Amino acid sequence: MRYSRDELMAAVSGQMPEKRWKHTLGVMETAVKLAERFGADPAKADLAAILHDVAKYWPVKDMEQVIRDNPELNQDLLNHDKQLWHSEVGALVARRDYGIEDPDILDAIRWHTSGRVGMSLLDKVVCLADYIEPGRDFPGVNNIRELAQHSLEKALIAGFDSTISFLLQQQRVIYPLTVLSRNDLIQHLIPTGGS
Amino acid sequence: MRYSRDELMAAVSGQMPEKRWKHTLGVMETAVKLAERFGADPAKADLAAILHDVAKYWPVKDMEQVIRDNPELNQDLLNHDKQLWHSEVGALVARRDYGIEDPDILDAIRWHTSGRVGMSLLDKVVCLADYIEPGRDFPGVNNIRELAQHSLEKALIAGFDSTISFLLQQQRVIYPLTVLSRNDLIQHLIPTGGS
Repeated sequence: MRYSRDELMAAVSGQMPEKRWKHTLGVMETAVKLAERFGADPAKADLAAILHDVAKYWPVKDMEQVIRDNPELNQDLLNHDKQLWHSEVGALVARRDYGIEDPDILDAIRWHTSGRVGMSLLDKVVCLADYIEPGRDFPGVNNIRELAQHSLEKALIAGFDSTISFLLQQQRVIYPLTVLSRNDLIQHLIPTGGS
Repeated sequence: MRYSRDELMAAVSGQMPEKRWKHTLGVMETAVKLAERFGADPAKADLAAILHDVAKYWPVKDMEQVIRDNPELNQDLLNHDKQLWHSEVGALVARRDYGIEDPDILDAIRWHTSGRVGMSLLDKVVCLADYIEPGRDFPGVNNIRELAQHSLEKALIAGFDSTISFLLQQQRVIYPLTVLSRNDLIQHLIPTGGS
């Protein structure tokens, strides 16, 4: 890796407003806690969290260029909300500009907004941390935090549910992968005696 | 066509409980009205409505066999709720057993539950009629009926919204095509001056 952790943090924080960097610090803290709780690698969770929003404040045209120039990124993104672009672009930037080579970390960055079918443990940790870091405040977030005490998957399903409900209310297009990720988590939930 | 309209009605009504046949009569009445309102062919709407639930009360094993025996049907159905199977199976049965050859009518039967990307006018009419026929009673149905006074598409989006909301609440898997159909309708809505 070309950058120390401190150098990475300095480089990433310089690319976003202070408020978003505060959010990133919250995701780092929460991702490490969740990793410890559910058996993921805390150091990988920390690095993925540092970098997850690296491209969030890039100019839209620059993100679009990265997507068009890299056919391995999902080109269907261009038909969907620009809010979704920074995750795939961020994973590419983390590798290209910051020397991150660990595929687990790159995947966790790439799928932190939409999830994917067959999410890894680290994907789930980073995606959930992004929903529930201490600075987040939206309807249902405390319920998701409670679920996160005992089930990574149930909490993440509730997170995706909140995203889909919000988009329904707003009469906005729903990114299909969010639905596929939620379906996949539900289909793999281990039935318990309770409800 | 091998069957007169009366013979078709007799044959289809014999394959379902009286309550479901009453629903079918409601869909026929509503589909014809919607066809007249929005410029679809009322006679095609009537025939599609008569047949739309022809396979609804078939034994699950028989529906499954039809899906497995006909690779042109969406095999992914088998991974989803059995409630979804009767539409594609119904279209096949309408052609095979009742001599319906008109592709517009067969498509309207095939897509009446999930919709599809690029729904035809007749698809929309039959799908919406299935949501709002007079016997239907679910949260939001009157709102959908009001929307149907002036916009087939807005009413249908609200219908799909109600399905997706229900599945979210129930913690059940969402059929991806329902979301894709809703997205497609939203993306093709003509913006108006109002909200």
